[in-house]
Amino acid sequence: MMNKHLVKPLLMLLICIGLSPMNTVSAQQKATWIWYPGDFEVWLSNKMQVRRTEREAVFPPLWQYYSPYALVTFQTEVELPEADDVKIYSEGPFQLLLDGVQVHGQPKSIKVPAGKHKISLKVYNQEVLPAIYIEGKYVKSNASWKVTNEDKLWIDENGQAQQSGTPWVPVGSWNFDAPERKPSEFKLTTTPWSAVKTEKVGAGELVDFGKETFGYVKIHGLKGKGKLALYYGESREEALDTAKCETLDHLSFDGTQPELYTNAGSKAFRYVNVQTDPSVKYDSISMLYEYLPLEYRGAFKSSDPLLNQIWDVSAYTMHLTTREFFIDGIKRDRWIWSGDAYQSYLMNYYLFFDSPSVERTLLALRGKEPVTAHINIIMDYSLYWFIGVYDYYLHTGDTKFIKTFYPRMKSLMEFCLERRNKSGFLEPLEGDWVFIDWANGLPKTGEVSFEQMLLARSLEAMSVSAGIAGKNDDQKYYQNLAEDLKTRLFDVFWDKKENVMKHQRIDGKVQDIVTRYANMFGIFFNYFNEDQKQSIKNKVLLNDNVLQITTPYMRFYELEALCAMGEQDYVLKEMRDYWGGMLKLGATSFWEEYNPNKSGKEHLEMYGRPYGKSLCHAWGASPIYLLGKYYLGVKPTAPGYSEYVVEPVLGGLKWMKGEVPTPNGSVKVDCSTTRIKVLASEGTGKLKIKSATTPKLSYGKAKKIGVNLYEATLKANQEMVVSYKAL
Amino acid sequence: MMNKHLVKPLLMLLICIGLSPMNTVSAQQKATWIWYPGDFEVWLSNKMQVRRTEREAVFPPLWQYYSPYALVTFQTEVELPEADDVKIYSEGPFQLLLDGVQVHGQPKSIKVPAGKHKISLKVYNQEVLPAIYIEGKYVKSNASWKVTNEDKLWIDENGQAQQSGTPWVPVGSWNFDAPERKPSEFKLTTTPWSAVKTEKVGAGELVDFGKETFGYVKIHGLKGKGKLALYYGESREEALDTAKCETLDHLSFDGTQPELYTNAGSKAFRYVNVQTDPSVKYDSISMLYEYLPLEYRGAFKSSDPLLNQIWDVSAYTMHLTTREFFIDGIKRDRWIWSGDAYQSYLMNYYLFFDSPSVERTLLALRGKEPVTAHINIIMDYSLYWFIGVYDYYLHTGDTKFIKTFYPRMKSLMEFCLERRNKSGFLEPLEGDWVFIDWANGLPKTGEVSFEQMLLARSLEAMSVSAGIAGKNDDQKYYQNLAEDLKTRLFDVFWDKKENVMKHQRIDGKVQDIVTRYANMFGIFFNYFNEDQKQSIKNKVLLNDNVLQITTPYMRFYELEALCAMGEQDYVLKEMRDYWGGMLKLGATSFWEEYNPNKSGKEHLEMYGRPYGKSLCHAWGASPIYLLGKYYLGVKPTAPGYSEYVVEPVLGGLKWMKGEVPTPNGSVKVDCSTTRIKVLASEGTGKLKIKSATTPKLSYGKAKKIGVNLYEATLKANQEMVVSYKAL
Repeated sequence: MMNKHLVKPLLMLLICIGLSPMNTVSAQQKATWIWYPGDFEVWLSNKMQVRRTEREAVFPPLWQYYSPYALVTFQTEVELPEADDVKIYSEGPFQLLLDGVQVHGQPKSIKVPAGKHKISLKVYNQEVLPAIYIEGKYVKSNASWKVTNEDKLWIDENGQAQQSGTPWVPVGSWNFDAPERKPSEFKLTTTPWSAVKTEKVGAGELVDFGKETFGYVKIHGLKGKGKLALYYGESREEALDTAKCETLDHLSFDGTQPELYTNAGSKAFRYVNVQTDPSVKYDSISMLYEYLPLEYRGAFKSSDPLLNQIWDVSAYTMHLTTREFFIDGIKRDRWIWSGDAYQSYLMNYYLFFDSPSVERTLLALRGKEPVTAHINIIMDYSLYWFIGVYDYYLHTGDTKFIKTFYPRMKSLMEFCLERRNKSGFLEPLEGDWVFIDWANGLPKTGEVSFEQMLLARSLEAMSVSAGIAGKNDDQKYYQNLAEDLKTRLFDVFWDKKENVMKHQRIDGKVQDIVTRYANMFGIFFNYFNEDQKQSIKNKVLLNDNVLQITTPYMRFYELEALCAMGEQDYVLKEMRDYWGGMLKLGATSFWEEYNPNKSGKEHLEMYGRPYGKSLCHAWGASPIYLLGKYYLGVKPTAPGYSEYVVEPVLGGLKWMKGEVPTPNGSVKVDCSTTRIKVLASEGTGKLKIKSATTPKLSYGKAKKIGVNLYEATLKANQEMVVSYKAL
Repeated sequence: MMNKHLVKPLLMLLICIGLSPMNTVSAQQKATWIWYPGDFEVWLSNKMQVRRTEREAVFPPLWQYYSPYALVTFQTEVELPEADDVKIYSEGPFQLLLDGVQVHGQPKSIKVPAGKHKISLKVYNQEVLPAIYIEGKYVKSNASWKVTNEDKLWIDENGQAQQSGTPWVPVGSWNFDAPERKPSEFKLTTTPWSAVKTEKVGAGELVDFGKETFGYVKIHGLKGKGKLALYYGESREEALDTAKCETLDHLSFDGTQPELYTNAGSKAFRYVNVQTDPSVKYDSISMLYEYLPLEYRGAFKSSDPLLNQIWDVSAYTMHLTTREFFIDGIKRDRWIWSGDAYQSYLMNYYLFFDSPSVERTLLALRGKEPVTAHINIIMDYSLYWFIGVYDYYLHTGDTKFIKTFYPRMKSLMEFCLERRNKSGFLEPLEGDWVFIDWANGLPKTGEVSFEQMLLARSLEAMSVSAGIAGKNDDQKYYQNLAEDLKTRLFDVFWDKKENVMKHQRIDGKVQDIVTRYANMFGIFFNYFNEDQKQSIKNKVLLNDNVLQITTPYMRFYELEALCAMGEQDYVLKEMRDYWGGMLKLGATSFWEEYNPNKSGKEHLEMYGRPYGKSLCHAWGASPIYLLGKYYLGVKPTAPGYSEYVVEPVLGGLKWMKGEVPTPNGSVKVDCSTTRIKVLASEGTGKLKIKSATTPKLSYGKAKKIGVNLYEATLKANQEMVVSYKAL
C-alpha cells in the first residue's frame, strides 16, 4: 500500500542508502550527530540496564550484551555551489579523506572547494561509540550520510585504492542537534521537586514526595563528617524497613563535600528514609525528578471521574517507564523486556506517539549479530519483537526502519525457525525460556499453541517487511510459512468438538487443557471466524473455570479481546474494579500485579520478598490503550494512518471526549449518546456509528452496513458532526 | 597422537571446561586476572592498531573491529578444607553470588565457609573489558574458572532459579599475576636509551640513536613556551625531510610542562629531527625504548661472520616487531596481518618460542562472531590462519587453544567454504582481496591454484583440530573435503606434459601461466612426489623466466622450498647476497623490500611515497627460521616436540652451532664437517646424518637409510656426539 505519506520517506531512503550516489545539499538542512545505526541504542541500553541495584549490588541482566562497533567509516558525496568551511566534531580520533586523499592531522575544520566531493571519516572509539557532527553551510552530518563497519579500502600493487563489498548502511541519529550535545553525554532531563511532608523517624526523618517519582536525592545545607544512609520506598513501609527495602545508598562524607549535595544514583521512590551519624547535619531533602521530555498528545475525559483518574495515573505510569527506553518498572527491573515493551509501544501510540522511543527500544532489544539466544532469552519475547516492528510500520507508515534493519529481522527469524521441531512447531530447547505469563500451574513444556500463534503472526510481519525491503523471494517464503503454520495450528490445536483452542501437545498427544492465551490472541489477530469467536468468548473468556489471569500483563490482552468482541460495558466495569482498586489503596502509579483478595503489606510482596513488587510498572497502564482504541475507537487500517477507523463505544459512559495522536496530527473524538464529533488532521477515515436511528452528518452520507450500524467517510481537517441515538 | 606432554594439558582442560564440576583447590595455586577468552586480545589489538599515524592523522585498519563482551559472568566451584578470606578485585562493577545468593553491595572481600561452594561474579565493563582477580588462601582466579557472556539465570513463577543452555567456556588469562597489574593498564616494558650522536640542522638538531628503535622521545631540561616539532626517520633522509617524513609530532607548550617531558605517542625511528620555536629551550633528547620482554631462546653462530650478523639483525628485527602482537612493521603498518604473522609464528618457534604471543596474535586476527569477511579481508590470510593454528599445535603440543576456540575455527571455515564457486574452488567474490604477493603483473582473478592449495592445507588443519576438539563427524568431513580438493587441484592445475602446476583457471579454461607460488608451497606441504619436485625445481624455482619474487615475504617460502630440496648451498649464497646487501647499505633491521638494482634514496621509496617503505619488517627476519630449521636442521615431527628430527646441513659453512627452543627446553646442535653434537632436553629425536663414512656415535647405533645417509635416535638430556665426514 502506497500513499503520499509513504512516498517521502521512501524517496529519502533511496537517496541515503546510496541508490542515488550524490546527496542533494542545501543550506537549509540541519546538522546532527550521527553514528552506526542501532549502536547508540546498544550502548545506552547496556549502560541503563546495569543501573538496577538490589541492596547496593549492581544487578545486570541475564541476557547477553552486544557492543557498538569501535571503528566505523562515515561517508557522504556532495555537490557544492561554492566553497564551504566545514567544522568537524568527533567522538574519537579520526582519519579524514577528502576525495580519497588523507587530510593531515585531526583538523577542527576543512575548506571543501565548490563542485563534487566525497568526504569520508573513519572514527575510532572503543570506550563509548564513534560519532561525528559535521557542520558547514552545505556539508552537514545528517540522516543522508552512510556508514560502514568494514570499509575494505585497500591499495593494490599499482598503488590504486580498491574498494568492493563494503556494507554501507544509512547512519543512525536522534536529536543531538548541536556540537556540544554529544551522544556519549546523553542524559534525561531533570527538574527540581520538593517534598510534600517529612516526619521524624528515630534519629532521622522520612521524606514523602507525595507520589511515585524517579530521580536523584538532593541534600541541602549538608555539613560535617560521617555517614548518611538513604532508604528508598515506593511505599511508606518499604522506606521504613531499612533491613529489607529493595534500594538504598550508604553515603560517606569527609567534610569537604559541597553543601548542596546531589546523589549520583537515580532511584524510584515516593518516600526516602534519611538516617545520619550525629556528626552529619543537613537542612532539608529534595530531589531532581528525571524524565524523558515528551508531549502528551493523547487525551481522554469522560463522564466518569474514576475512569478519568485511571487514565491520568496510567499516563503518569507510562511516562515514568518511558525513559531512555520503554522499561518494565522504575524500581525493578529497570530493564527492557520485549513482552513488556510490546505493550508500551501500543500504549505509546495512544499517548505520546513518540516514534524514536519505539525505534530505540526495538533496536536495544534486537541487539546485533550473531543471534545466539531469544530476546531476553524468552521464546515469546523474540516473537513479540517482530509484531512490534509490524505495528510500528502500521502506526507510523515509516519504511526506513524496516529497510535498514531487515537483515536483523531476518537473522532473528532464522534463529527462531531453526529451533522448530520436526513437526515445524516451536518447542523449548536448552536455554529457551517459555514465559507466556506468571501463573501458577500454567504448563509451558512441549508444543504450546500460544507460541505457534505468535510465530504465525511474526511470519506474517516478516512477509510484509520483506516486501518493504524489496526481498520478494523472502516475502513469498514467509507468507507460505505463515499460511502453512496457521493451517497446522488449527489442525492440531483446534478442538472441533469443543470449539476452543487447546493449550499444549506433548509427544504428539494434545493435552486436555484449555487456557485463555491462544484463544484471546486469536481474536484480535483475527484468526477465528465469528462462530469460533463466540464459542471462545463463552467457553473461555467468560468462563471462571479456565485458569484466571492475575497479571495486568495478560489482563491487557484479555480485556482487549473482550473489547474486540464488543464487551466494552463489561470491560469498563473491570477497569473500574481493578485499576480503581489500586487507586483506592493509594496507588499513585499502577503496579506490576494487583490481587484484590490481598490486604495491607501483602500488596507489596512479590518473588518472596516483602517489597519485591514494582509499584510503577508499564504494563499497568493499559487503560490508555483500551480507552483510545476501543472506546474512542480510533485505529489505523493502513500504514501511518493514511486510512483509519473511528468506532466510538461509550460502554456505559454518558459522554467521553479525547484525542488519539497520528504521525502528523491527531484524531479528536467527542461523543455523547446523541452526538459524535470527529476531527482528524490527516488520512481518510471511516466513522462507524451504532445508532438506533439513521445518523445525520455534517457532510457526506451515512451508509447502512448492518443492523443499526452505519458508516461515514471522514476527511482530513473537516470536522464531522453526527446526530445519532446510542443503543 | 598422544604422549605424556599432551596428557597434562588435556586433563587440565577437562577440569576447566566443567566435565569435572568441582575444581581442586590448593593453597599453592597462583591467582591471576581472568577474562572472557580472546576478549583481551580483541580489545588490545583494537587499541594498538589505531596507533599507526601518517603525518599526525590516525590511520586505522580497513577491516572490522570486534569488541569484548561488556557483561560476563565468571564462575568456579570449590571445596574448601577451612574457611577462606577472599579478596575481590574487579575491572567494572559486579554482582557477587555465593551459592546462588546475592552478596550485599560491592564487597572488597568475603569470607567463604569451609565446604563446597559455587562462586559467581557478573561483571560489567563497557569502557574496557570485564576482568577479575580473586585471591584467598584457596579460592583464586586462574585458568580453571569458567566464564559466559550469557548466563541465562532466570527465576521461574515458583521463585526457583533456572539456568540452562549457558555457553560456559574456560577463561582467558596471561601474566597479570598481581591485583595492581590490571589488564586495562597493560603496557609494554620501557627502558631509557641515549642518543649516540647529534648534529645541528637549521635552528634545531638531528638526533641519531645509532640503530632502528621504537618508543617515546624524552626531552630533558625543557623550558619556555611555544612549539616544538619532532620529525622521525627510519633513515637520516626521512628525518631531515620535514615535509615528507611519514611520522611527526607537533607539540605545543604553555610553559607549565615538566622539565623532563616524555612524548605520549610511540614511534619507530633511528633519527629524530627536533625543531623548536626560539622561545622553547631544552638540554638534550633521549628516548624510552619500548619492547616486549622476551628471552632469546634460539641461537646461531657459524664460521661465517656475515651470516652471524644476518642472524643477529634478523633477531633484532623480529624482537622489534614482536610486541603486543606480531605486527608487520614498526613504522608501518603497525597492524596485524595474518600472512605476515604466519611467518612470525614460524620465526618465533626458532627464536623466542613464546606461545602467548602466538595465541594473542591468532586471537586478535580471528576476532569474534559473526564472520563477515576474510581475515584482513584477504582470502589467503584467512587460510594462513588455520595453518598457523595447526603449526602452533605441532610446535607446542597445546590442545587447549584448539579446544577452546574450535567454534571460531569452524565458523571461519564455514565462511570460506560458502565462498567456493560451483567447481568447489575459491574464487574472489565482492569484497575479497586476493593478495598472494606484491608482484607486477601477477594474475589474481578467477581460480588461482595457490589459493586452492592453501585451502586444502587449511582443511587438513581443520580435520586435525576437529579430532582434538572431539568432533569426530567434523574430522571426517574436513578430511574428505581436503582429499577431494587435492584431487581436483591436481586434475585441473597440474600440467602432465610440462610437469608443473599452472597458476590460474578462468571460465573453465586453464591459463598458460606458471608462477612460483603453488609450486613452492606444494614442496614444503609435501603435496608432490619426487619426480614432480625435481621438475618444479628445475622448471620453476631455478628458472629465471618465471616471474621473479622480489619481496622478502615470498622469498621466505621460495628459500624454504629450495632448502626442503637440499639446496642449502644455493640458499646460503642467496642469504649473503640479499640480507648481506641490506647490511652493506647500513641496515640495522631488515626491510619490507630490497631490490639490489636500486640505489640511494630509491631504497626508501614505496607505495609512491619517498619514505613509504618500512625499514623494520618482520618478514625480513626469515634467516632465523631458515637457519634453525634447514641448517641446524631441527623440526618437530609430533606435537610439542615429543618427536623431532635433527638433520644438520652446513650448506658450505665450516661449522655452525646453535640452539632451537622446544616447549620445555631446547635442542642444541654443534656441527663441523667432522663432528656433530646434539643435546635435547625433551622428546625423542631422529638425528639424520649425511656422511661419506659410517658415523660413530657416543650412544646408540647409526642406521643406514640411504646412500650416504644415516639415522640415529636421540634421547632427552643425553648428549649425542657423532664423528662423521661431511659430504
